[in-house]
Order: sequence, then C-alpha cells, then structure tokens
Amino acid sequence: MAIRIFVTGGTFDKEYNELTGKLYFKDTHLQEMLKLGRCKIEVDVRTLMMIDSLEMTDADRGIILENCVLCEDERIIITHGTDTMEQTAQMLGRAIKNKTLVLTGAMIPYKFGSSDGLFNLGSALAFAETLPHGVYIAMNGRCFNWDNVRKNRKTGEFEEIG
Amino acid sequence: MAIRIFVTGGTFDKEYNELTGKLYFKDTHLQEMLKLGRCKIEVDVRTLMMIDSLEMTDADRGIILENCVLCEDERIIITHGTDTMEQTAQMLGRAIKNKTLVLTGAMIPYKFGSSDGLFNLGSALAFAETLPHGVYIAMNGRCFNWDNVRKNRKTGEFEEIG
Amino acid sequence: MAIRIFVTGGTFDKEYNELTGKLYFKDTHLQEMLKLGRCKIEVDVRTLMMIDSLEMTDADRGIILENCVLCEDERIIITHGTDTMEQTAQMLGRAIKNKTLVLTGAMIPYKFGSSDGLFNLGSALAFAETLPHGVYIAMNGRCFNWDNVRKNRKTGEFEEIG
Amino acid sequence: MAIRIFVTGGTFDKEYNELTGKLYFKDTHLQEMLKLGRCKIEVDVRTLMMIDSLEMTDADRGIILENCVLCEDERIIITHGTDTMEQTAQMLGRAIKNKTLVLTGAMIPYKFGSSDGLFNLGSALAFAETLPHGVYIAMNGRCFNWDNVRKNRKTGEFEEIG
Repeated sequence: MAIRIFVTGGTFDKEYNELTGKLYFKDTHLQEMLKLGRCKIEVDVRTLMMIDSLEMTDADRGIILENCVLCEDERIIITHGTDTMEQTAQMLGRAIKNKTLVLTGAMIPYKFGSSDGLFNLGSALAFAETLPHGVYIAMNGRCFNWDNVRKNRKTGEFEEIG
Repeated sequence: MAIRIFVTGGTFDKEYNELTGKLYFKDTHLQEMLKLGRCKIEVDVRTLMMIDSLEMTDADRGIILENCVLCEDERIIITHGTDTMEQTAQMLGRAIKNKTLVLTGAMIPYKFGSSDGLFNLGSALAFAETLPHGVYIAMNGRCFNWDNVRKNRKTGEFEEIG
Repeated sequence: MAIRIFVTGGTFDKEYNELTGKLYFKDTHLQEMLKLGRCKIEVDVRTLMMIDSLEMTDADRGIILENCVLCEDERIIITHGTDTMEQTAQMLGRAIKNKTLVLTGAMIPYKFGSSDGLFNLGSALAFAETLPHGVYIAMNGRCFNWDNVRKNRKTGEFEEIG
Repeated sequence: MAIRIFVTGGTFDKEYNELTGKLYFKDTHLQEMLKLGRCKIEVDVRTLMMIDSLEMTDADRGIILENCVLCEDERIIITHGTDTMEQTAQMLGRAIKNKTLVLTGAMIPYKFGSSDGLFNLGSALAFAETLPHGVYIAMNGRCFNWDNVRKNRKTGEFEEIG
C-alpha cells in the first residue's frame, strides 16, 4: 500500500530564523520525521506549497484539490496549518468521494523539542491506511469527519461541531 | 471511545543510569508521551510490569492475558519489547477474539532524542481506534496480524512471515 | 565561589505560543538549563525583566546597572538578547570596574532542540569564574571585552571592532 | 587562539545500538556539538581512541600523553570517561607543566536528549582559553586541579579530595 503525502506548510514546518528572530519556512521536515519514525510504509512526499494556512487563498486550495484528484494513490495525507484546516477539509470533502484523505498538522513546530508533530504524523498514517473513502482531520489522537469538525479558537483543540 | 494502555516495559521505557552507565527501567514515559502528543483521546494507562521482553516468562504473559480478558475496554494497546513481541501477540491472538489489541514498542528508548516511540504510539492509537477485533503488531507505520509477523533479527524490522 | 545570574530575557527564553503561533516570554529556563548541565557551582538566579533586547530602554538598562552595583556577589552573569547586547555591555563597562560581569545569550531559543544556549551558559559560567574584573560578552565559545565587540548584522556573529 | 581537542570516548560519545539494545561507540559527536554551539573558536578535533574509561590501559594513557606532548597547540581539551578521569589527569599533571590541559566528559551520552555534554564542552573551552598552564578537570560548571579531585562513586559528582 503506497501513501501520498502532500505538504502545504503550517506550524509543522516552521523554523526559527537566527538573523531576524522570526519564524519562517525553509524546507519540509517530513522526510526527516519519517526517518525518525523508521517508517516502513511506502510513502511519496510532494511539496505543493510552504505557507501559513491563514494566508491560504482559494487558488491555493484549488492546487491542493487538483493534486488530490490527479494523484494515482488512493490514500493521501495533507500536512496543513491548523488555523484553516477545516475550510480545506470541507472543500475537499465536497469534491472527492473515491479516496481516503487525511489532513494533519501540529500545534508546535517539529523543530521545537516539544512538538506533537511526530505523534500526529504516526496517527495520520495509520488512519490513512485503515479508514474507508472520505475526508478526515487527524489531530492529537483523534480523527474527525470533514463535515463535523472545527478548531476551538480558545483552547486550540479540534472538536465536533454538533 | 476509551482506550486502555497496558505497559510492560521494553526499549520504549529504558533509561540511562548515570551512576552505573547501564540502561534500566524506572517509571513508564507513557503519560509524558501522551502529553507531548497533546492526546485528546480518553486513555487509561496501567503498568503491568517493567521488563526487558527477553526476560518475559510464561507467567508474565499470563498476567498480560488475564488483564486483557478482564479489561472492560474493548480497545487495548500493549507496550512491549520488540524481541519477543511476536510470541506475546501469538499467545493473545489465539486466546482473545472479541477485542482490538495492538502491541507496539520502539527501536530506540523514548528518552533518547532520536526515538521512534512517539511516532509508533500515535499510529498504535489510530490503529486501536479503527481496526476490527483482532490482535495486531503496530511498528514503524505498519500494522501486522498476530499470525503473520516476525522480527527480522538482522535488520531489526518487523515483516510478514509468508 | 557564588555566581549571580541576572535574567533579562532575549532569545534564550523565548517560547512558542500554541494559540497565536507567535514567540513570547513566559518564565526563564535558566534553572532548567542549570539542572540539565548538572551545575554544581553555587548560583543565584534573579529575573530582572523578560524582554526582547530591541525593546530595552535606558530605564531598563538603569535597572540592570543598579542591580549589578548593589549585588554582593563579585561574579555576575547577565542573560540578554543579542541585538543590543553590546550597548548594555558598554554602559556597564564604563560604570563598573570592581566586578566580573559576563553577558551571554543565544541565537536560538533554548526550547528549540537546536539551541546554542546550553553551550553558551556553560562557557559564560567558566568565564565568570576565571576572568579578572571587567565586563565581557561571551558568545559561541568566544569572550570579548566590552569596548571591543559588536554584533555583525549580516552574519549574526559577534566580532572585534578593530 | 587555537584549541586542540583529543577525543578518547567515554559516556560523551556513547550511542544506542538498535539491534543489540546495547550502548556502543561509533563516531565522536564533537563536531556536531561544536556546530550546535555555533562555536567560533578555532578548534582542531582528533580522535585518539573510542573507549570506555574503565577499559583504559596504561598503554592508552601513554598514547594520550604522547599526543599532548607532541601537540603544537598550547591549549588542549581531552574528552574522557568519568570513571577513570582522575587517573589520567594525575598522569598528565605529573608529566606536563607547559600547557593548559582540560579533561571533560559527561554523565549522560550526548545523543540522549538530557545530556550535560554541551554544557560541559562550553565550559571546558572557556577554561582552556583562560586558565594558566596546568592540568584540570572541568565538570558540571566546576574546575579542579589534577592533584585535588576525585569522583564520588555514590553521588557521581566530582569533588575536592581534601
């Protein structure tokens, strides 16, 4: 079973710029994380964009959708900033019915020692391997359907809407 | 959905003793790892033993079996040393048919910066949430049935037997 | 020999805010770092302020000076943001002649796995123990006199002026 | 000012072997540690041996002595296991009077997240830069003369003899 991973940026991949003291994007850490997890699943990682999800436009979401539609793999993980993850999940959920799509991310950048990224990536891979066709958000051990999930702005946690 | 985690020791929980220079077991790191992963699943962690799986006896396996049988939760994760994980999986697989049991572990102790433990724990939780009744080994992104898995002693990897 | 450590903030102590995605100051990590280094020197840590050194005012520098003057310990370390570390060193160097003052900081926050903070703290303590009275900047293994040091804005490194 | 670093092994450089579950030596982590500390001092690292200091023989100590004598750099750091660090320091202290030699090590391997190695290396470099000719042990923020230091076997700490 092969799994495709589309990288879009988000907290997952943010780094600290020593010269400016600001957070920024350089390259994705997905390969490094898969190596750390000694991942033995066949995985194909492609970077679609490296952006903060607050800055993600409809055009960006169009690129994600197109890649998911054209992708020959049936099981796909999308790394994504948490701030607008639910919007992208809804857009994909309405459009794609014949694949298993799992969006995941992190509350803390991977390069920080205390990141939840490796845990989330491990569970996202397992959900992508086992769940039926559909679009899901996998965060912090939980898995949500695209049409029943939102990020609680006060707690930072994902939760069911109803 | 509540998940029970039974801790038995293994590489997962080994630590470095500063005074002797040897690896040893103190307490389990499971709670610390769940916190790092910001795990939002309801989880109940119980330590059954803290041993190297090479030293696990039939009596020890009896204790694991009994706890799995008596446990009211239907979904159970067992952390376990990798060296005899397949034996324990076989014993459990023959005896228990009405629960989802996932054995997992690590190639590198969690307290070492480069551990695969957090990744494995994330995927073990996801497999425990989604898979039908049965006994499984979840390691490094993959999930095996109890009756078709072995640890390759040369590569250190888990693989199908046939 | 007792050493006083005055904390003023800087990159050293920056953390990542999960809810806002911004870097911020909470508490100092000095005690945690001294524990990690298993520091056996008698050290007294006091937090004077927790600010980015770009926002440090003359009034703030006055507070640092006053504390260094009134402090009964002869050997003092000041943790400080690197952006204006040379200004504070110059102010202190002109005013204080009867103590050994060592300013230090980090290019990367301690909470990031890849920080130089622990290395710099180790060397700052050693410089504070051994150097004669004077005001110094200790960064990345080097030690500079207060009147012959600047931060190179392009490389991020500290260097002699002349 | 150039500093020579002679690597002899010790806890500093121990790694975890995934296949055997034992600690072992592969390559030194000194270069990686100097990079993490963004060390700007000119440093020349040479590996003399990679052994546990409990297994260090008189012949091994002879090799260390010879290299220190022949070395053109006047300031030398020796990384060393803590168990027999005091013996090597005494041997060097009796023989070498015209150089500054600093022995250092770690209580926890560098590859473990919780190592004191980076802190000790930072202070060893600072001591090597500033101390007069002599042979010293630098551990956990403290610096001892070769003829007045021992490792307390019960606490694991270095302390003065008298």
